[in-house]
Amino acid sequence: MLTAVSLGPGDESLMTPAARAALEAADVVAGYKGYIALVPPAILEGKEVVSTGMMGEVERAKAAIEQARTGKRTVMVCSGDAGIYAMAGLLLEILEAESLIEEIPFDVVPGVAAFNSAAALLGAPLMHDFASISLSDLLTPWEVIEKRLRLASEADFVIAIYNPRSKKRSDHLQKALDIIAENRTKETPVGIVGRAYREGQDVRAVTLDTVDVESVDMQTVLIIGNSATRITGGRMLTPRGYHRKYDISNS
Amino acid sequence: MLTAVSLGPGDESLMTPAARAALEAADVVAGYKGYIALVPPAILEGKEVVSTGMMGEVERAKAAIEQARTGKRTVMVCSGDAGIYAMAGLLLEILEAESLIEEIPFDVVPGVAAFNSAAALLGAPLMHDFASISLSDLLTPWEVIEKRLRLASEADFVIAIYNPRSKKRSDHLQKALDIIAENRTKETPVGIVGRAYREGQDVRAVTLDTVDVESVDMQTVLIIGNSATRITGGRMLTPRGYHRKYDISNS
Repeated sequence: MLTAVSLGPGDESLMTPAARAALEAADVVAGYKGYIALVPPAILEGKEVVSTGMMGEVERAKAAIEQARTGKRTVMVCSGDAGIYAMAGLLLEILEAESLIEEIPFDVVPGVAAFNSAAALLGAPLMHDFASISLSDLLTPWEVIEKRLRLASEADFVIAIYNPRSKKRSDHLQKALDIIAENRTKETPVGIVGRAYREGQDVRAVTLDTVDVESVDMQTVLIIGNSATRITGGRMLTPRGYHRKYDISNS
Repeated sequence: MLTAVSLGPGDESLMTPAARAALEAADVVAGYKGYIALVPPAILEGKEVVSTGMMGEVERAKAAIEQARTGKRTVMVCSGDAGIYAMAGLLLEILEAESLIEEIPFDVVPGVAAFNSAAALLGAPLMHDFASISLSDLLTPWEVIEKRLRLASEADFVIAIYNPRSKKRSDHLQKALDIIAENRTKETPVGIVGRAYREGQDVRAVTLDTVDVESVDMQTVLIIGNSATRITGGRMLTPRGYHRKYDISNS
């Protein structure tokens, strides 16, 4: 039995009881070492832990599947939601490639994803239609990413940006912001959230023309407002549209 | 003090400890009656509950703010994530309109949103860039919704559809599917999830040309695959792209 378990942003208070129960019931806990570190140590006691910093994602997934194949209840942990840009898909791909999809029961425990966390800390930026785009071109051609940024901006989606920057790709974020700026004013609010609900949490709301790309790292999520998003009382707010139909003022 | 609290899809196992703690600490719990029903009854004991089925969202938000203004610790509950198409924004809008944004401390407890839940039950459809679009034209002009559907489809986003259907708008979903079909093959997988993690849960994976729109109601979330999404072992899988760079077969 194999379960992809969402740990949430990192704080235990945002890890669901279902995730905790899956971890407690597991014989083997697999995962990137940074995510294993988010699991309360008491839960890991007496369990086999499969986590080598040197292994890539594919090797880690294969190792977890190998454990599950021997009949051990195996959990693969992911920060945020295991179903959003995370390991649920790779596990399923490998189960399929190894013709194990009927043999090994597989499920996913959903969780609080990175952009859910970022949005909560910023105020209410995701009240309207939005798109989520990863700037990592390790597995996606950069031209596809640019096209998505352009169309998402034209569609006036609020845009959540994952994997905004790495050492090798230090200019991607600025390129992305420039593309978005073709269809947004420079005053458009941009929320920048690093290490949400973890030590070193950093929450900022700036404007599209004042994003300090040097201050952004791979653990940061950005939320770029749509044409109606505004900052109020230090919070980022994308109105749903009630003001068009109802009197929301003090009457 | 006012807190917008995410209950998750409905099952207690997916309500975070932070949500539970906020509920337990509250003097007043406000919310739509269908959401109040998701709160474990023991937590509500001895608390004031503000929930009239007749009140609209604006009135309910104003009533909650009125309670918070008197110094009571007030919680507004939402199913899914309070920060995704939910009450966090309306509360902030009214706090702003009533000049209370500095006076009443306000925060949001993030949670497991409807599309996180739907994705987990379907397999791994959200492994790549995606857009979320509500088909409700109560607060958004239908032309804007159509434009977003068209551009999201052109961008090859996986598309999550909220509020797919109501009695008054029975043709919106078919219109939306037709627009998406302009840029997707008719074999594109579509996940349909009703009442995720609640009684009567209904999970189906069909293709774009076989969606039974009559079977879809307002409590359903649809996830429409991108050009690479496929069904494998009954699960919906949007590959992240590892197969382009790594050998994921049994080697």
